[in-house]
Amino acid sequence: MTAFALDIAATDGAARLGSLATAHGPIRTPAFMPVGTAATVKGMLPDQVKATGADIVLANTYHLMLRPGSKRVAGQGGLHRFMGWPGPILTDSGGYQVFSLSELRKITENGVRFRSHVDGSYNDLTPENAMAIQHDLDATITMVLDECTEHPATHERAQASMERSMRWAQRCKDAFRPREGYALFGIAQGGTHEDLRRASAEALVVIGFDGYAVGGLAVGEGQEDMFRTLDATVPFLPHDKPRYLMGVGRPDDIVGAVARGIDMFDCVLPTRSGRTGQGFTRRGTINIRNARHQDDPRPLDETCACRACTGFSRAYLHHLFRCGEMLGPMLLTGHNVTFYQDLMAGLRGAIGERCLEDWSGEFLARYRGGDVPPL
Amino acid sequence: MTAFALDIAATDGAARLGSLATAHGPIRTPAFMPVGTAATVKGMLPDQVKATGADIVLANTYHLMLRPGSKRVAGQGGLHRFMGWPGPILTDSGGYQVFSLSELRKITENGVRFRSHVDGSYNDLTPENAMAIQHDLDATITMVLDECTEHPATHERAQASMERSMRWAQRCKDAFRPREGYALFGIAQGGTHEDLRRASAEALVVIGFDGYAVGGLAVGEGQEDMFRTLDATVPFLPHDKPRYLMGVGRPDDIVGAVARGIDMFDCVLPTRSGRTGQGFTRRGTINIRNARHQDDPRPLDETCACRACTGFSRAYLHHLFRCGEMLGPMLLTGHNVTFYQDLMAGLRGAIGERCLEDWSGEFLARYRGGDVPPL
Repeated sequence: MTAFALDIAATDGAARLGSLATAHGPIRTPAFMPVGTAATVKGMLPDQVKATGADIVLANTYHLMLRPGSKRVAGQGGLHRFMGWPGPILTDSGGYQVFSLSELRKITENGVRFRSHVDGSYNDLTPENAMAIQHDLDATITMVLDECTEHPATHERAQASMERSMRWAQRCKDAFRPREGYALFGIAQGGTHEDLRRASAEALVVIGFDGYAVGGLAVGEGQEDMFRTLDATVPFLPHDKPRYLMGVGRPDDIVGAVARGIDMFDCVLPTRSGRTGQGFTRRGTINIRNARHQDDPRPLDETCACRACTGFSRAYLHHLFRCGEMLGPMLLTGHNVTFYQDLMAGLRGAIGERCLEDWSGEFLARYRGGDVPPL
Repeated sequence: MTAFALDIAATDGAARLGSLATAHGPIRTPAFMPVGTAATVKGMLPDQVKATGADIVLANTYHLMLRPGSKRVAGQGGLHRFMGWPGPILTDSGGYQVFSLSELRKITENGVRFRSHVDGSYNDLTPENAMAIQHDLDATITMVLDECTEHPATHERAQASMERSMRWAQRCKDAFRPREGYALFGIAQGGTHEDLRRASAEALVVIGFDGYAVGGLAVGEGQEDMFRTLDATVPFLPHDKPRYLMGVGRPDDIVGAVARGIDMFDCVLPTRSGRTGQGFTRRGTINIRNARHQDDPRPLDETCACRACTGFSRAYLHHLFRCGEMLGPMLLTGHNVTFYQDLMAGLRGAIGERCLEDWSGEFLARYRGGDVPPL
């Protein structure tokens, strides 16, 4: 079996180029994880996801514990086999969705009780059963249960919330059943308060995890505060462990976070945007539903090797979205995930050649300055 | 260039095994054409359609003339290039949809005026512009405009309707611009009245077409009347031209029609059923949404080589449909189209070996008698 370990091949400033060995294969870092909420990256077959260059996908514990249920997934041989993705899978702890999706919730020191948004049933999520559920799912990377602090939060409120998350993190560590090549990640909280972020990072390091996530960002604080918070957190995380910025983000967020030493990302943006007709290109984002594309024989992005760009015109993609045809979201999702993976490959290449700042500057100038109108 | 021609390699009773040469490649017959209404087989990439064994797809003139418009398709280099399907394409004339989908319609000797179901605009369809539109679409096989006789229809009503369709067929022939490897098919009408069917077939033969369709069936008359009507029509069609039974049908309809000398079929059943969770198997149809599949680790059909059956369990397919995930319809559509193409391959093999009756008997006994409950 393979030990779970990050091999850092090169650095450029705070940025790191690496390879993360896991029980289900290696992950090239910095990595972007496409989101497969309900054990499927919406509109894509697993081999299509793999073909974009993705090494790992994320699945949501909250959704899967409700449907089909973690015991049912275990009965099918685990999530990898169930969804036909043999590679690494990270599952979140369900905490974030409890706060954003469930109808009612009551939080205590023990955990959180909530009503399912699917059928109204009452369910509990505690540090202990969050570990058991993710074990049943057979997640390669398990995330601790944390409390998602609302934004904005006063220092007092953010501190109390963060400290509870740290107590939960210890309980998760105690309940987690380690296996070779599998990992448990802690999650730093503390809102945008720099002292709390440092305290949270240090508390997690004392407990000791296989990787460290920065949670509670991309919740409306803006890019400047996000980067400032990263600067206050990342230096207090171990150099030799992977760092994961949860739920981020836009291409320019990712570029900035990689420069600050982040190794892993996830976000629904490429998949969700793909379903609504928004496509990412190297010259900015475009809305394919816009009438100006209806006679355009060019591909979405001339430099992209995805199926949408090598096989179809903007005119055809526009037509598919206008008609509500499934193939539109299928093709545009595949394109957007490819765009994100190409971005990560570009960032990795630049770190390896120690030219990240130049590469990022050129990327951002083209991305922000293209003749493509913003979304 | 290739001449449009049917090469009959073997016969077994009235059934024929053949190859239909076209400008866009050969079609193995008997053939089933997946329906790509709006220039896309819903939920499938063109290469996935091809991989099922399909040689030709059908597209709907009515939908395409309204969205994106035939001139727009022509401006993109024609339908093949627009939708990324280089193989043969058959377009219907739009007549059937005018009668089933448009909000208002007025039929005269000249043609039919209707209101679009998309935007309420008024549009005309005449024999002459039906030819022009299909020419713009670059259809490999163009269908004449006909009047879709309602069912049931009295002999008097069916005769008047059929005779108008024959006058329109002549006008279509006059307006059609022949090209090497392209074809124009006539459509026999006459309801379920045997004398009218014979008269219609003979009238079409006098005009002279590259192929002959049997229209106006599968409209509620039942399989017995459908087969009886075929028996009254097919013997009066030329042996050396392809015969196409429009809008048919269920697997057992196809088996019976092939035995009666039909070479081509189209139907929305495999694709539409796939989107609603109904899967075809060699042991009958199943509804994957049924709770009894939720823990079933077996594939939909052990003998099927499609992506759904080789990569995923019934439990997973059930989960996808329960969650409303796009991948469910994508996988089940691909499976159903594969099932239909496998059926056609089986029929072709049986004709080649002159054992169609035995093969069909075994297929139908298994299909109808399996332990799979009916839909």
